[in-house]
Parts: sequence; C-alpha cells; structure tokens
Amino acid sequence: MNWKNHLTTLLQIDYPIIQAPMLGVTSPEMAAAISNAGGLGSLPVGGLSPKKTHELIQKTKTLTNKPFAVNLFVHTIQQIDVPQAEKMIAFLDNIAADYNLDFEKPHIENLQFYSYKDQIDILINENIPIVSFTFGIPDDNSIKLLKEKNIVLIGTATSVEEAKLLEQKGVDAITVQGIEAGGHRGSFIKNEPLPQVGLMALLPQIADTVNLPLLASGAINDGRTIKAAFALGAAAVQIGTAFIASHESSAIPSYKTALAAAADTDTTLTKIYSGRWARGIKNEFIKLIRNSGISIPDYPIQNSLTTSFRAKAQQQDNNQFTNMWAGQSAFGAQQKPAADIFWEMVKSTEKLT
Amino acid sequence: MNWKNHLTTLLQIDYPIIQAPMLGVTSPEMAAAISNAGGLGSLPVGGLSPKKTHELIQKTKTLTNKPFAVNLFVHTIQQIDVPQAEKMIAFLDNIAADYNLDFEKPHIENLQFYSYKDQIDILINENIPIVSFTFGIPDDNSIKLLKEKNIVLIGTATSVEEAKLLEQKGVDAITVQGIEAGGHRGSFIKNEPLPQVGLMALLPQIADTVNLPLLASGAINDGRTIKAAFALGAAAVQIGTAFIASHESSAIPSYKTALAAAADTDTTLTKIYSGRWARGIKNEFIKLIRNSGISIPDYPIQNSLTTSFRAKAQQQDNNQFTNMWAGQSAFGAQQKPAADIFWEMVKSTEKLT
Repeated sequence: MNWKNHLTTLLQIDYPIIQAPMLGVTSPEMAAAISNAGGLGSLPVGGLSPKKTHELIQKTKTLTNKPFAVNLFVHTIQQIDVPQAEKMIAFLDNIAADYNLDFEKPHIENLQFYSYKDQIDILINENIPIVSFTFGIPDDNSIKLLKEKNIVLIGTATSVEEAKLLEQKGVDAITVQGIEAGGHRGSFIKNEPLPQVGLMALLPQIADTVNLPLLASGAINDGRTIKAAFALGAAAVQIGTAFIASHESSAIPSYKTALAAAADTDTTLTKIYSGRWARGIKNEFIKLIRNSGISIPDYPIQNSLTTSFRAKAQQQDNNQFTNMWAGQSAFGAQQKPAADIFWEMVKSTEKLT
Repeated sequence: MNWKNHLTTLLQIDYPIIQAPMLGVTSPEMAAAISNAGGLGSLPVGGLSPKKTHELIQKTKTLTNKPFAVNLFVHTIQQIDVPQAEKMIAFLDNIAADYNLDFEKPHIENLQFYSYKDQIDILINENIPIVSFTFGIPDDNSIKLLKEKNIVLIGTATSVEEAKLLEQKGVDAITVQGIEAGGHRGSFIKNEPLPQVGLMALLPQIADTVNLPLLASGAINDGRTIKAAFALGAAAVQIGTAFIASHESSAIPSYKTALAAAADTDTTLTKIYSGRWARGIKNEFIKLIRNSGISIPDYPIQNSLTTSFRAKAQQQDNNQFTNMWAGQSAFGAQQKPAADIFWEMVKSTEKLT
C-alpha cells in the first residue's frame, strides 16, 4: 500500500502536510490558508461550546472551499474537588496581585464544561469531511454516527498500545505524536507515568504494528524533518509550532518573539496551565506554581480556572503568565503568512527528494 | 562539505555505522566484530583502572587489525558523603536480604575511583586512532596531547549548547544523543533539569549550529531509522541497543530476553544505578529505590556502591536487580553474531537508498 497516495486522496489534499490543530492559536484564517494552499487545515474546537463550535466552522467555510479537519478533545468531565479548586483560585489571586494581573476571578458555580458529544451533530450537519481527535477515543456510538456519514477519522497516539486501540476502533489514520511535539499530549491509556517516546522510536514501531496511514507529529518544520518522517514510515506530517508565529495565528506578539528565539531545551512538560500534560516554553507562571507545590486540578477544571487569568496576561502581551505551547524545534519560527511558511516547506522538501 | 565521506575517511571505515560504547555490555569481541565488518567498533573504558584499560585494548587488538574507538567518561570525582553512602549500603543490604542477593557489601574506605586523566597516556602509547568521550570535555592539556598525536576526537552532546562548546574545544565530530537513546545521558552543562530533546529536534538544530560531522544516536536500528538520521543531517549513526542481545555481548540472558520484548514505553530515565541519568528497562530495583525516597549519591559513588550488588544479580541471571540499559526502540533486538546484525542494517539501508 502506498500510504502517502492513499492519504492525500482520502484527505483530498495536494501535499501531505497537515496544519496541527492548536486551540488558542489556530484561527479560521490559519486553517483556511493551509487548506487553500493545498495542505490540510485543522480547526480546533476541543472543549468549546456547541455555539462557538458552530461559529468557528461557519467562519472557516467563508474563507475556503477546500476540505478542512475539525479537531475534538475526547476527555471525560471530572467532578470538581471544590476545596482544591478554591485553593487554586486563591493562589491565582495572589499571583495576580503580585504581578498586576487584574483578572476576573472564576466562580466555581459558574464554570461550564462541554463534551465532544455535544459537537458530533454539528460536525455531521455541517458536512465536515475529516474529524481528528485527541485525549481519547470517541464512544462507539459517536464513531458509528461519524462513519455512517463517511467522515474520515484521525486519532492521536503517543504509544504503540494507543495506536493498536485506535486501529481496533476503526479510525482511518493515526497521528503519531512524538515527545518533541508542542502543546497537549494526546496520551489516553495512561497519563502517569506519561509515555515520553521520541518520534524516531515511536513512528517505526507504530508503522510495524498497525495497518493504517500515519501522520508524523513533533519537531517537523522543514524539508529535512519531513523527509525523515517519511523515511520512518509516515504518510503525512502534522506541523504545529512552525505556524504559531504566522500572521494568521492568534498568539500574542511576545509569544511569537519567544518562540522564534527558543533554544532546544527551553520547553518543558507541564500540567500547570490546563491540568493535562502539555509542552511549552518555560515561564514565570510554571516556576511559581511548581515551587508552590500546590495541587493541580485535572483537565478540564484547571483549564477553566486559569482561563481568565491567562486572558488577562494575553491582553497585556505578558508571556510569563500564559501558556506558550511549543515543540522542541521552535527556533526560527517565522512571522509570515501561513501559506508562505507552508510553501517554503513544500519547496524545501522537493529540493531534497 | 560531504560530511559522510569526510567522516568515513577520517574514521577509516567502509560504512558510516558506529557501534556505541556500552560499558558492561560491549566486549572486545563485539567492538572487533563491528570493526572487522567495516563499521567502527567502540571499546568502553569509562571509569576503569589503567590496568584494566590496557588489558581491554590489548585484547581487542588481538581480535582486529582495523581501527576501533576507545570511549572515556569525562567525569569529576566527587567527595564521598559518608553518611549518605552508609545509608545506601544499608539499604542495599536490606534488599539483598529480602531477595536472596548475597552480595559482597562495599566498604567506603576501599572504594577506588579512576579518572580519564589516568588513561590518556595509555591511549597514546597504544596508538589508539579514535577517542570518543561523554559526560564532559577533557581538560585542555589532555585534548592537546591527543591532538598532537592526530587522534580523532568525538564528543557527545545532548543539547545545542553542549555541541557549541565541543566545537570550540576542537573536537573532530560530535555524537548527537537524542532522548531516545539507551544508557547514560552524556549531558554535561546541566544535569538538572536534564536536557530531554528528541533526536528529530536535536539533530537538525545542532547541524544548523556547528560545522562538524555528526553521529546520530538514539532509536536507530534499521534502514528506515538510518535513512531518517541522514535526512536530519547525520554523517553517521551510532547504534547501541540493537547490539546488546548479540552473541558477543556481555549482557546476561534474562536482559537479552527482556530487551527483545520491550515495548516503546518500557524504559525510564533513572539515576538509581549509577548516580547519573541513564535510560533502561524498568525493573524491581528502580521501583524499590524510588518508592523508598532514599537520597542517591552522585556518579561515580553510587555506581561503585551498587557494583557488587549488580554483579551478584547478574551471577544469578536476575534482571530485576541490575541495570538493563536500553533505548526506546529495543523491541526485537536479535540474538545473533554482532556482524550479522550489522550486515542486516547495511542491507536494509541500501535497499532504501
């Protein structure tokens, strides 16, 4: 099987390059730009309300006639541990006072959580051709509904075991997320200890185990890394960090600047912003909360508790108190139109092959 | 510059494949087998006495006329914290009683530590053509002595910063050790937090920074991974884990078996065996010592304290109480002559290129 041809046909794309769904960074404009350029844009809607989900899809459709993927978070919604959450709010309030971050304090009773189950109907009604997901596998009924509409399903694996389970559940392709990747880890069988397998090890082992096209993710940003991913068995590459500084990105200016200057060892894995493991550039908030030893509520609770705090920091263009998700190859991320970054990758790959 | 041709000429090898120096696993027979096959064997002598160093070199020379590398540990010898060491000995003694490991208890006053500085003269007198090293950079005088004899120097880097420093100090090539790699981390600028950069991120960033041939290390074991390493900018690959189960390896049988069955997530980074971070297959000793919360003496003290304990476990072919260093792609490691494993890699690479 020529998985590369199979996948580009399945996804209706000219180039086997997928823009990674990056919640908080990927705008409809970014997803549309990549789809328009002949790659696959991915619109992230993980954890968003049905209303917001619908709006973002509508907006993206006004910007491209090409197919794009919609990305879901398949998480379970935890019971709030109220004393733990109250302590976290008080902790954030203290930091806010120390650093002039006059944020709107969250109220536990007002927190609202949404499930991917509330989004499935929207995706079907909107004729979304490709649905990718992370943090887990949708329940059997959701998978059945999506597959009945011939929607292409792309799951995320961070270990061989997760890839096997995704194959059993009938996905069409798997994103293989190496430990180099920026943003949230997709791990879902076990988060403690977190699987931390490098792409060089993970991709060939998954390729040897499942009979599906694979999207390589983690540290891919140019012709060399794209060529390496194909050598390891990928049918396509999924690229995130390289698009964070793009003109279409929602990242704040100081995040874009930090990204372009980030050394190979400047990122860390942290649960501190959202309650789930994610890779980002080290900053003051990570240090303060680590040193405090405070207990971190699980995702999505911690994510909601820090939302207004991070929003305030972003308003102030303060990159020390909001997440700067980034992979281990952030250095040199370019502030250009996303399509220009995309084309440079295509050209750099063609020059090598 | 064609770094691949440059390096094979410099190292006088037919194929750009280096067998990684693996102390406790690599025998003179293994190093000689790889050099005889047209790759580069590496004889590890890190921390060994001058006498033992001399013996191993002599023995290897009886087995091959081809060049081989000798590998040094460039560590500093710490002052022993006697109460900490006594507690560790008592802890090992307790485990030994529980698990019938009747080991020879170490005596702090008898511990002997050797420096690479005691080995430089031997390497020069024995006309060793290639010296590789890890854990640091030899002092300027040692580098000068080695370079005066036109000895090829290969340093080890786990970050861009380390690679820059190695280049400044005048090494001829750099082994780029991805986080996937088995055994000890070569990190020397900072061990806490340990640089944990995947090869997919580390190799291209070092290639963009230094003007030297690079050896890729970590999760490389077949044509696909060799091809990927070259795409990322490597001039050669350094392969360890794939040779641990070879006939020439000193690994105990139960270690070889565990290796061949190891899943992608079965390894962990631990300081528990030697006092330095290293990657190996999780086992009972790692669990017990982690759960105990006991403080771990630095390398080389902890390494010496656990030596007789590990030797006893090895005598009993008990893989739960000795280190099973392994990279993240151990699965399927073959019990065959090392040269056969080497040739399969060469053929699998040629088929792809």
